[in-house]
Amino acid sequence: MQTIGMPKISRKGANLPTSPIRKLAHQATLANERGVHIYHLNIGQPDLPSPKSALTALRTYEEKVIAYGPSEGTKSFRMKLTTYYKKHNIDISPEDILVTTGASEAIIMALDCITNEGDELIIPEPFYANYETFAAACGVKVIGVPSAFETQFALPEIDDIEAAINPKTRALFICNPNNPSGYVYKKEELKALAELAIKHDIFFIVDEVYREFLYDGETHTSVLEFEGLAQHAILIDSMSKRYSMCGARIGCLVTKNKEVVAAALKFAQSRLCPPTIALHACEAAIDEPSAYLTESVREYTQRRTTAIKSLQAIPGVEVAVPKGAFYCLARLPITDSDHFAKWMLESFSVDNETLMVAPANGFFSGDKTGKDMIRIAFVLESKKLVRALDLLRLALEKYPNKTI
Amino acid sequence: MQTIGMPKISRKGANLPTSPIRKLAHQATLANERGVHIYHLNIGQPDLPSPKSALTALRTYEEKVIAYGPSEGTKSFRMKLTTYYKKHNIDISPEDILVTTGASEAIIMALDCITNEGDELIIPEPFYANYETFAAACGVKVIGVPSAFETQFALPEIDDIEAAINPKTRALFICNPNNPSGYVYKKEELKALAELAIKHDIFFIVDEVYREFLYDGETHTSVLEFEGLAQHAILIDSMSKRYSMCGARIGCLVTKNKEVVAAALKFAQSRLCPPTIALHACEAAIDEPSAYLTESVREYTQRRTTAIKSLQAIPGVEVAVPKGAFYCLARLPITDSDHFAKWMLESFSVDNETLMVAPANGFFSGDKTGKDMIRIAFVLESKKLVRALDLLRLALEKYPNKTI
Repeated sequence: MQTIGMPKISRKGANLPTSPIRKLAHQATLANERGVHIYHLNIGQPDLPSPKSALTALRTYEEKVIAYGPSEGTKSFRMKLTTYYKKHNIDISPEDILVTTGASEAIIMALDCITNEGDELIIPEPFYANYETFAAACGVKVIGVPSAFETQFALPEIDDIEAAINPKTRALFICNPNNPSGYVYKKEELKALAELAIKHDIFFIVDEVYREFLYDGETHTSVLEFEGLAQHAILIDSMSKRYSMCGARIGCLVTKNKEVVAAALKFAQSRLCPPTIALHACEAAIDEPSAYLTESVREYTQRRTTAIKSLQAIPGVEVAVPKGAFYCLARLPITDSDHFAKWMLESFSVDNETLMVAPANGFFSGDKTGKDMIRIAFVLESKKLVRALDLLRLALEKYPNKTI
Repeated sequence: MQTIGMPKISRKGANLPTSPIRKLAHQATLANERGVHIYHLNIGQPDLPSPKSALTALRTYEEKVIAYGPSEGTKSFRMKLTTYYKKHNIDISPEDILVTTGASEAIIMALDCITNEGDELIIPEPFYANYETFAAACGVKVIGVPSAFETQFALPEIDDIEAAINPKTRALFICNPNNPSGYVYKKEELKALAELAIKHDIFFIVDEVYREFLYDGETHTSVLEFEGLAQHAILIDSMSKRYSMCGARIGCLVTKNKEVVAAALKFAQSRLCPPTIALHACEAAIDEPSAYLTESVREYTQRRTTAIKSLQAIPGVEVAVPKGAFYCLARLPITDSDHFAKWMLESFSVDNETLMVAPANGFFSGDKTGKDMIRIAFVLESKKLVRALDLLRLALEKYPNKTI
C-alpha cells in the first residue's frame, strides 16, 4: 500500500545493501564528535602523499576556463596510458581506452554496455561489495561462487564456476589482485577463466586497480595479455590507488571490443566528460619517476608484514595472508562483525582512541557468510597500524559477545 | 544469432541514440585536422573565465594527499549551498543535499532511486537529449508531451500531460529554464505540474542548472518553493553553467524526501565520492563576489540579443525566442538538420571556417520531429557569434538540399 503524499521509491533504492566500507560513517562521525580518534582500517584510503608532479600540475594550472573535455578523455592522457600499459605487457591503442570518473564509473558503464535487466554476473566471493550495487543499478544479479579462507581465497574450482553459467550469464568478473582478500590470481587460473569466457561467449571483466601492489615475489597477469580473448576481455582500471589520488576520480575502461567501446562512448557522451582538473593532475602523475611507485610498494610491503604479524598475534584471530592489494580478511572469535564494528565505534575506546573496520558480510553474496570476518585495509603507516591492531586486540578482550 | 567469438552487447548499449550535442565530434576532429576552424555552437560550453576564487583555490591547493571525500559531499560545501539557496527563496538544510559528479550523475541517481525497469517519465518535449540516455540506462521510457514552437515551447496543455500519466509513470521531469528551448516556466505552469504530481503521487524532478540566466525581466521559481510538495520535489543542480566550470563535474541532488536521500546515499557510497579537487575549487567559487554572476548574465543578455538578431536576419530561418538559459531552437529551410550539420563540417567552409550545431531531432522523442531545427548555444562572445551565424547564412545559401 502506498501512503498518499509519499511517492514510492524504487525497489533497488529500497533494498540495496549499504556499503560495508562506509555503512558506519554516521557512527564514526558521532565518535569524532565525542572527541574519539578513529584509526580508519575500513577504507582503502592510503596516507601516502600523491605524486609531486600531480600537485605541481594543480598549482600551476593555467586554464582560464575549466571547460568540458572529450567524453572519452583527452587523447594525450590516453596516449600516455598506452605507454604505461606497454610496460605491463599490455598492447593497446588510445582508441581502446575510455577514461571514466573512477573505476566505479568504468564498471557501471561496462555493465550498461553488456547486460540486460535480469542478467547475471558470476563473481568469485568474497568480492568488492560495491560490485553488487553497480549490478543492482543495472537490474543485474550477482552470482557469487565461494572461494575458501583456507586457500587464502584462491579461485574456486573451475567446474563450480562453469556450473553457475546459464543463458542469463553475461560475464565472469574478478578483481585481481583481489579486494578484499588480497589474493593474486595465477596465470593458469586466469587462463581457465578466459577459456570459459570464450567457450560460453561471455565477457570476462577484470578490475586490476591494484596491479602494482604485489608481495612475496608475486607477478601479475592482465586479462588483456591472453590471445584470442580480445573480444571478451574488459579491463577496469583506476589512478586512485596507484598514485594515492583516490579523490581525483579518474579511471578507465579498456577493451579491444569495438562494439563495447562504441556503446560505452554513448553513455560517456551523455554524462559529458570525466572531471578535467583531476585528469590534468593524473596526466602529470603518469610522468612521475618510477621511484614513486617502487617506494609505495616498498612501504606497503612493510605495512602488510606489520598488519599480518599484529593480527596473527591476537588470540583467536586467523588471517588469510594477502599476496597483493592492501587488504586482508581476518576471522575473529565473534559471530557478528557488524555488531562488533559498530560497538567499537560506539562503546569502546582506549585513551580516547578506537578503530573502524569493514564488516566482511557485505563482501559475500550470502546473508550469513563472512559474519565472523572483517576486512582490514593496511593503508596506515606501520606505527599507526600497530596501535590500531593493538586496539583491535583490546576490543576483542572487552567485547561482551565474543565466542571464546 | 550470436556470432561465436563475439559476445553480445546489451540492448540499450546497441540501441541508444548518440547525443546530438556530441554525435558529430568525429567529423569535427577531421575538419580540425584539415585546418578548418570550427565555431562551436553545438555545446553549452561558455567561454567566460571561471571565477578567480576557484582558480586561486587550485593554485594554492595545500593537501598532500588527494584523498576520498564524504560520499555526500563535504559538510562545508553543503552548508554554503544552503546559504546560496536561501538567497533564491529555497529553504533547505545540508542533509537535503547530495553532492554529485555533475548534474548528470544527480539525474542518474534520482532515476535509480525512484524508478523500476519498465517505468515511465513524462517530459515536455523538446528536452535535453541526455535525459533519454539516463532513462535508458535505468530501463525507463521517456514519454514526451509536445510543446509548440509557436508558443516558444511553453508548457503543453496540462490535460495533455495528465492524459499521459498511467500506473507506470514515476515522475514529471522538466528543465527550467529549458535546455534546448530557453523557455522559462511560469509560476502557474509549475503550480499546475506540482498539483498533478501530488494528485497522482509521483515525483516532480526539475533541472534548474540555468537558474540565473534569465532575460527580458523573467523571474525564476524553484520546484522547492511550493508548499505541500516537499515529498515529491527533486531538484537537480550544477556548478557548471553558473560558474563556467563545466569540466569540474560538480552538481547536486536536493530533496526533502528522506527516503530518496537515504537511497541516493547508498548509490553515492558505492561510487565513493564526487571529485574532491573540483569540489574544493567549486567551494571557493561560491564565495566569489556576486558581481561575477551579474556580469555573466549581462554578457549572456548581449549574446542572446546578437544571436536572435542574426538568426532572424537569415532568410527562411525562424527562431523560438529564449527567455532563459543560453540555447535557442531555430527552424531552418531544410528537411534534415542531421545531414545539414554534418555537411557543414565535411563539405562547407568559408576562409577555412565553419560551424558546428546540434541537430534538434535528438531533443524530441519522435523519429521525425525537429528534423528541420537546430539548437544553437549562444555561448561565444558576440563578435564570434556574428561570424558564426553569418557562416550559417552562407551555408544555407550553398546547401544543396534546402527546401526554398
